[in-house]
Amino acid sequence: MDERETLIERLRKGDIPSLLERAAEGEPLAAEEIAREIVEGTAVLCANGLRDIDRPCAIGAGLRTKVNANIGTSAERADLAVELSKLLAAVEAGADTVMDLSTGGDIDAVRRAVVANSAVPVGTVPIYQAAIESQERHGSIVAMTADEMFGAVERHAADGVDFVTVHCGVTTKALSALESTGRVADIVSRGGAFLSGWIIYNERENPLYENFDRMLEIARRYEVTLSLGDGFRPGAVADATDAAQIQELITLGELVGRCREAGVQAMVEGPGHVPLHQVVENVRLAKDICRGAPFYVLGPLVTDVAPGYDHIVAGIGGALAAASGADYLCYVTPREHLGLPEEEDVREGTIVTRIAAHAADLAKNPGFFMSWDTEMSRARKALKWERQVELSLDPRRAGGVLAECRVADDTGCTMCGEFCAMKFIAKYLGTEESTC
Amino acid sequence: MDERETLIERLRKGDIPSLLERAAEGEPLAAEEIAREIVEGTAVLCANGLRDIDRPCAIGAGLRTKVNANIGTSAERADLAVELSKLLAAVEAGADTVMDLSTGGDIDAVRRAVVANSAVPVGTVPIYQAAIESQERHGSIVAMTADEMFGAVERHAADGVDFVTVHCGVTTKALSALESTGRVADIVSRGGAFLSGWIIYNERENPLYENFDRMLEIARRYEVTLSLGDGFRPGAVADATDAAQIQELITLGELVGRCREAGVQAMVEGPGHVPLHQVVENVRLAKDICRGAPFYVLGPLVTDVAPGYDHIVAGIGGALAAASGADYLCYVTPREHLGLPEEEDVREGTIVTRIAAHAADLAKNPGFFMSWDTEMSRARKALKWERQVELSLDPRRAGGVLAECRVADDTGCTMCGEFCAMKFIAKYLGTEESTC
Repeated sequence: MDERETLIERLRKGDIPSLLERAAEGEPLAAEEIAREIVEGTAVLCANGLRDIDRPCAIGAGLRTKVNANIGTSAERADLAVELSKLLAAVEAGADTVMDLSTGGDIDAVRRAVVANSAVPVGTVPIYQAAIESQERHGSIVAMTADEMFGAVERHAADGVDFVTVHCGVTTKALSALESTGRVADIVSRGGAFLSGWIIYNERENPLYENFDRMLEIARRYEVTLSLGDGFRPGAVADATDAAQIQELITLGELVGRCREAGVQAMVEGPGHVPLHQVVENVRLAKDICRGAPFYVLGPLVTDVAPGYDHIVAGIGGALAAASGADYLCYVTPREHLGLPEEEDVREGTIVTRIAAHAADLAKNPGFFMSWDTEMSRARKALKWERQVELSLDPRRAGGVLAECRVADDTGCTMCGEFCAMKFIAKYLGTEESTC
Repeated sequence: MDERETLIERLRKGDIPSLLERAAEGEPLAAEEIAREIVEGTAVLCANGLRDIDRPCAIGAGLRTKVNANIGTSAERADLAVELSKLLAAVEAGADTVMDLSTGGDIDAVRRAVVANSAVPVGTVPIYQAAIESQERHGSIVAMTADEMFGAVERHAADGVDFVTVHCGVTTKALSALESTGRVADIVSRGGAFLSGWIIYNERENPLYENFDRMLEIARRYEVTLSLGDGFRPGAVADATDAAQIQELITLGELVGRCREAGVQAMVEGPGHVPLHQVVENVRLAKDICRGAPFYVLGPLVTDVAPGYDHIVAGIGGALAAASGADYLCYVTPREHLGLPEEEDVREGTIVTRIAAHAADLAKNPGFFMSWDTEMSRARKALKWERQVELSLDPRRAGGVLAECRVADDTGCTMCGEFCAMKFIAKYLGTEESTC
């Protein structure tokens, strides 16, 4: 390992960077308290050592639930300008981080442009690029070498990426569990699929697991946070919480321990498709097995049957997951399971996931987070329409709908008109003055 | 009481009407089992004794979670044709029941047309009409007489309405609790507001509570199900689970007992705005206090800050409420808190609430309800796109999005293209044939 100090090592000495001070704004914890969580490994500050970030954020215990928006090209849709519009839409809609999952066009160019233009931390999944380049170079994904896998991670880190998803828990052991149990949807994580195919074809252990020290060296060198990916996340509610998923989780818990020993920041990724009655147990299991590491969930999607509405399906699962302890929600867009999201999908997915995150924050820490809601309800009670729009999580949408519903004298809305319950009862309760 | 036999009395004798046989289709319970729940008071079959219903449904313990869509005019928007379009939109989108909450135009004519044209059970809130007519007749809502209140209930029942919301739990005692505790949003239920104003102005107890026997007589005469309304439901998350709400709930529990003694079907209505960490306790409390009566929730809305997205906010709360035991979800539309829903809002609200209900059903009874999801995931794994659309909860939406995302050879979508995880791994796991 090289001698560069990691963030954790700096924080241990009481050296709090200004980036962390800024990340503490709007949080229930002060910078010093967040620093303690980072040192413990129960929070992370995703910030590549090479770059500054306009809107940094910390993720983890005691903090506001964060929202990630995935953008990126595919072979079918590869246009840098489109990706930069999606980046802007995500950030404007309030995403705390973005991930560039590009798999088409000039992947390096897109990533560099996203990092250069993003006001928020940027994550990637380097194995996608390694696999695509292996396909081009060797004619097959499974011909990918260990050097190529780690090379992609290092290239992304050197470009200033703040966190990388690495599927180090996709092991022969977890794969055996998957093969013996059987699944409706097998493997739906691309990284999980590529590495599982690699293991089966090469009859060898996953190099990202076997040579995890090499991953730790890269993470230290660039201060890149490791997001330990869940290659065996269930892709059907019937597959949730099975042996393959939990076997991988156990490995991720082991790797969290190795990150902590190495002074490397780590978080853990979670499912996936999970029926509602298994969401709480999934979060608790992940938190217990992975020693309180920040838990980053994709969804969870609580049913498989609603394509076109999967942002809402994920919002339901995400709200409950975060209320139960998940720290970070990856958005899902209305196009999930059908196609690559476009700009409006990015916006919609981000807003809906922020709703889920805020609903969870009210449950996690009502004392800190409920004042926003109460201010909104006071404006509602006082029939102050402009103020309600200003206070809305999405003022653009609220203002647009209101414009269509407004009644002439502004003393009610088209729902109740003169028979507004709040207006009516204020006269009798004598609460009219106090709330206006 | 008159001598007409109620449904409960018929079922006690083993006489199961064909309407109940039809209501049992697609349910985890057989008609005889549902009959036992209805006799116990833990399920209801909302079906006015005077009429037949194309798509009847039972609501309660062990049954599929049901979805209600509210339609109806306001003083600002009163057009019978529009309401009939909304009725059709709700039923086509899969609403199990509709409620006509009209407060504008010719209220009697709208209600009669809705009852005549509805394929599903119809509910109303007669106190709205009583209040509006009192305003017209006496110049004030609080001048309404007890005869006018009960007269409105009877008029609705005589028109064939299948269930009526009656705010019999709005009592002087609950109102005192509200006044002494104080609230951010006071009273947001219109029925609750009208009756509270009446109690304060007249310095008398709520006639709907005081003369509850008269309500039972009407319910028996027309076999109309009583939906015991929650006039003190919280309208701000800060107001949730307070003394006024729980005091009213205790009264509703008492009235459930009186309904059972009288052979009258009853359900209980619940909140409202409730933060996520109080949803489960609200459902359990209602079920315990109201002796397992079917529980009908409006939302619950888990945050106040997202106008324009309140169908989603309610979907989050509703899914968790139903998974915890609520039996019946009243939809919320994207226009909630801003205006009266239009046809497209009715459709969107119904679909999103059905998603919440199905997510809850997977949690309540995965053995019975998960086969739909698994069939979808098999179609997804096999890349059978048309089949996925057919199986979708909203095939119209799924088909529309897919049409924009389709790739030429149909072997993937624009998200992953050739790098589809499911397609890739099937080769290595050897699962390709078995799933196609």
